[in-house]
Amino acid sequence: MFMHISFLVLLCSHFAAALWPIPRTLQTGNTLLKLASDFDLKLNLDGPPQDLVDAVARAKSQLQNDKLQLLVPDRGESNRNGLTTAKSLASLTLSLKTDAPALRPIATEATDDLHARDESYSLFVPSDGSQAALFANSSLGLLRGLTTFGQLWYDLDGTTYTTVAPVTISHDLPAYPYRGVMLDTSRNFFPVSDIKRALDAMSWVKMSTFHWHITDSQSWPLGIAEFPELAQKGAYSSEETFTPDDIQSIVTFAAQRGIDVVMEIDNPGHTASVGSSHPEHVACFEGTGRTVGEPPAGQLRLASDATLNFTLGVLTAVASKLPSKFFHTGGDEVNVPCYDQDQQTQQELHSSGRTLEQAIGHWVDATHDKLRSIGKTPVVWEEMVLEHNITLKNDTVALVWISSQHAASIAAKNVRIVHAPADYFYLDCGGGGWLGGDLGNSWCDPFKSWQKAYTFDPLANISAQQHSLILGGQQLLWTEQSGPENLDPMLWPRAASSAEVFWTGPTLPDGTDRVAGIAGNNHTAKTNVLARMHDLRARLEKRGIRPINIQPKWCQLRPDKCTNQL
Amino acid sequence: MFMHISFLVLLCSHFAAALWPIPRTLQTGNTLLKLASDFDLKLNLDGPPQDLVDAVARAKSQLQNDKLQLLVPDRGESNRNGLTTAKSLASLTLSLKTDAPALRPIATEATDDLHARDESYSLFVPSDGSQAALFANSSLGLLRGLTTFGQLWYDLDGTTYTTVAPVTISHDLPAYPYRGVMLDTSRNFFPVSDIKRALDAMSWVKMSTFHWHITDSQSWPLGIAEFPELAQKGAYSSEETFTPDDIQSIVTFAAQRGIDVVMEIDNPGHTASVGSSHPEHVACFEGTGRTVGEPPAGQLRLASDATLNFTLGVLTAVASKLPSKFFHTGGDEVNVPCYDQDQQTQQELHSSGRTLEQAIGHWVDATHDKLRSIGKTPVVWEEMVLEHNITLKNDTVALVWISSQHAASIAAKNVRIVHAPADYFYLDCGGGGWLGGDLGNSWCDPFKSWQKAYTFDPLANISAQQHSLILGGQQLLWTEQSGPENLDPMLWPRAASSAEVFWTGPTLPDGTDRVAGIAGNNHTAKTNVLARMHDLRARLEKRGIRPINIQPKWCQLRPDKCTNQL
Repeated sequence: MFMHISFLVLLCSHFAAALWPIPRTLQTGNTLLKLASDFDLKLNLDGPPQDLVDAVARAKSQLQNDKLQLLVPDRGESNRNGLTTAKSLASLTLSLKTDAPALRPIATEATDDLHARDESYSLFVPSDGSQAALFANSSLGLLRGLTTFGQLWYDLDGTTYTTVAPVTISHDLPAYPYRGVMLDTSRNFFPVSDIKRALDAMSWVKMSTFHWHITDSQSWPLGIAEFPELAQKGAYSSEETFTPDDIQSIVTFAAQRGIDVVMEIDNPGHTASVGSSHPEHVACFEGTGRTVGEPPAGQLRLASDATLNFTLGVLTAVASKLPSKFFHTGGDEVNVPCYDQDQQTQQELHSSGRTLEQAIGHWVDATHDKLRSIGKTPVVWEEMVLEHNITLKNDTVALVWISSQHAASIAAKNVRIVHAPADYFYLDCGGGGWLGGDLGNSWCDPFKSWQKAYTFDPLANISAQQHSLILGGQQLLWTEQSGPENLDPMLWPRAASSAEVFWTGPTLPDGTDRVAGIAGNNHTAKTNVLARMHDLRARLEKRGIRPINIQPKWCQLRPDKCTNQL
Repeated sequence: MFMHISFLVLLCSHFAAALWPIPRTLQTGNTLLKLASDFDLKLNLDGPPQDLVDAVARAKSQLQNDKLQLLVPDRGESNRNGLTTAKSLASLTLSLKTDAPALRPIATEATDDLHARDESYSLFVPSDGSQAALFANSSLGLLRGLTTFGQLWYDLDGTTYTTVAPVTISHDLPAYPYRGVMLDTSRNFFPVSDIKRALDAMSWVKMSTFHWHITDSQSWPLGIAEFPELAQKGAYSSEETFTPDDIQSIVTFAAQRGIDVVMEIDNPGHTASVGSSHPEHVACFEGTGRTVGEPPAGQLRLASDATLNFTLGVLTAVASKLPSKFFHTGGDEVNVPCYDQDQQTQQELHSSGRTLEQAIGHWVDATHDKLRSIGKTPVVWEEMVLEHNITLKNDTVALVWISSQHAASIAAKNVRIVHAPADYFYLDCGGGGWLGGDLGNSWCDPFKSWQKAYTFDPLANISAQQHSLILGGQQLLWTEQSGPENLDPMLWPRAASSAEVFWTGPTLPDGTDRVAGIAGNNHTAKTNVLARMHDLRARLEKRGIRPINIQPKWCQLRPDKCTNQL
């Protein structure tokens, strides 16, 4: 009977080999291996960049401090005897692959153009006590490999061990370069410390992009040295402002963790907050009725030369100080009734001889070309491609948001795509209608569970010739009903779903089809994904994040008993 | 123009007179009044009980530390000049009403039988600088009045003031005595500190009852001196156990804040965790398939005399140490296939000559009579009334949970009712299906917003003759997908909705119909409720709770611009 129980526990601990996102190639054994008490991370590199040295120090600290017990009923107790005689791992050595280019800082590589990033790595953790090795072509690849290594280890009364040695990852690299999270810091504000905590967690699942929706109609927390009045009058308060130093601090923090910050100044819509300091640039400021999508109303006077020049100045001042090659200009939900009712806009359209659609095109061309002139690639919401009569230049990147079904139409226009569809990836859905007296559901009900997001297929309805247009995707948190109080529970562990969708791609390393594995009839596949998600969640919690439980703890310890295939 | 803005601000500040739950009688003025720098709370009482003295000290601390600014665009700045000349309030004196009975501790009054509690109070805050006065018949009434007083005050650079003096509450008392929150601490565990923080916040909205669903199939965190094995083997871990001292600490903490802890040991279903220490008492332990509602399976062998005696022992050991006059025996979701498949139960039914339904009746009579013998009134879930062929004694209290529509059927059986319906009050709904591979919605979708809960009508389909059967109601958090990480965001501010539903009753003090006010076409009524909810949320946050935002901050400062009546 004891052997029987022990065998079950081993089965459980096996699928608790909980890497997330799971590498695209992975071989594991079932040998116990512990970290030596003087285990060290060694850099076999000439003059390693400081941010890589810092990343190694953080990884070492996590190895010592995670103290995560195995998520099995006995929390790993059955390994106690085996660990007394298990081999010890003395070190992991980080090296460059043969013919790798000269190392640059992680921050430089993470903010380079998408195609110029090399996140690949190879990792070997032998079970015989010989040293482990991590190889990559870049500091960014070494960071990704370190992140994988850090997810292998569990604690039993101070012994740090894995149950799945030897581990061989012959070549892991992401299926897509853009793997992100979007946060709206305008509707409700988030302190720098909250954003950095989110960035840390994003890096632990190898995300590459933080889409910072920093401004919107509700507030303008973006401090700009050249335009101080925008935040002074448009932020909720001076405390609810990101100073230029705050922004540099966040951008640097992110880049050092392998994350490119793609900032968005949404325009010409979603800009009522500009009116607090520059009412001359805002149409239907504080309007009501048909001019309001959600309160408050107000958008930039897109037919005004003065407003365009002002906007170009703001975009340049902000974008020129950011390392990213991308800048997001928004372009969603341009409210036509607002412009129809604005006398000044109507006069300016008349004198320019442009229709409103032509004026939108002129505005977008001007803002995008200005960004290109300072080395930025413009990013837009899908309406700029699908709803307006604009010919975007073919470097532009479009975010699909209204429906996942729209990706195919964008691909048909040969525009590059980042998947951000509300029907899979909007983390805010399902909180109920939020206007006072609104008793209905949220517009994008239901809640997007981690499982729903996990089933996303980036290539649905995309032809083979169009595959290269797909850059990746992201989950998004709009903050009508969120703030610092629930940031972690809203993001985690759900946001990790897309991290695996876009890193691992369509096929798990054991050959399972990712989507069919969770959505089909394969109990083992479902159990494995569930177990890994529980494990990730538990590790996030150990590292100071406050993720929601996705199941009762009874199930966290027995995922095989808690699928819908029983 | 300045006068115009100032007038608008005054309008805003008026509806920010943000008492929650709003008293049933309330007259306010529009005079500024500030607290004197040496403002004091005075007890005009002979030998006040220590827990009232402590409550006064907490109230004083909140007056000093809330530091809540008015939720208007200028955060109260327009009051700066007026405050320099405003009158100062030197004290609030707490007194007993003429003919009040002798004071007992709050804790004694809060745990007395429902009809024996007197929560009424009267409060007078003059605008002329003369002292304020609070009168009640009990320490519990004084606590409720103190709570109201504490919601009147705002901060402007260290000046604590109200904009709505004079305040006259001639007689406030709850419409219903039972106003509660239920928390499930079995599916996922909550530390004592989290529960106490929830109790504190509950007391700030005058809630009277904490329904503690302490055990369930997933874990048995309930430490019992006489049955230590139940938690030793049934809890998730020794750290995830409520010791007898923890329980006394929580129950005392609650009672001192006017909250009766009604503990539930759900039985005979929802008891798989008993099987960890007593497999002999559990049918279909760890069963699968039709025996499982949600994993794990297992429920007490209700036809077994040994199991019944064991259960009577457990119930007595636990209930006898609790001050509440109520004890909840559960009774929901008895799984018939589990008993059908359990050989022992079938044999015991056969030898006793009882059908399963008769055995359920015998079980319930025995457990309830045992509780009555130690002075407890039994509380059950609705199935005990509606789905089984049991004649409950007429002291029993039933919780409606499956649908609000079921209340009328229970009332028709002359059984007392606590409203806890999933379609209004389940705080966990809307999180998505949670079994591994479940891509669907939660069973009780959608999310129950604060607004939905606020529209609940306790007397819907209840005849006038049956009104006295309605004891009140509660919101509930089942914790398949919750834990300490998201407790505050799941509870607050949503749980405050029912606090007003069951305190204030059908009519707000300005004569507005409560439900029509939020659900109808009255913009002012919607604005007023929304503004008060924002204010409560902000005050909860100032006191260390992490409530979700229910709107962007822009709307929190301008609720009149953020209803669905624009």
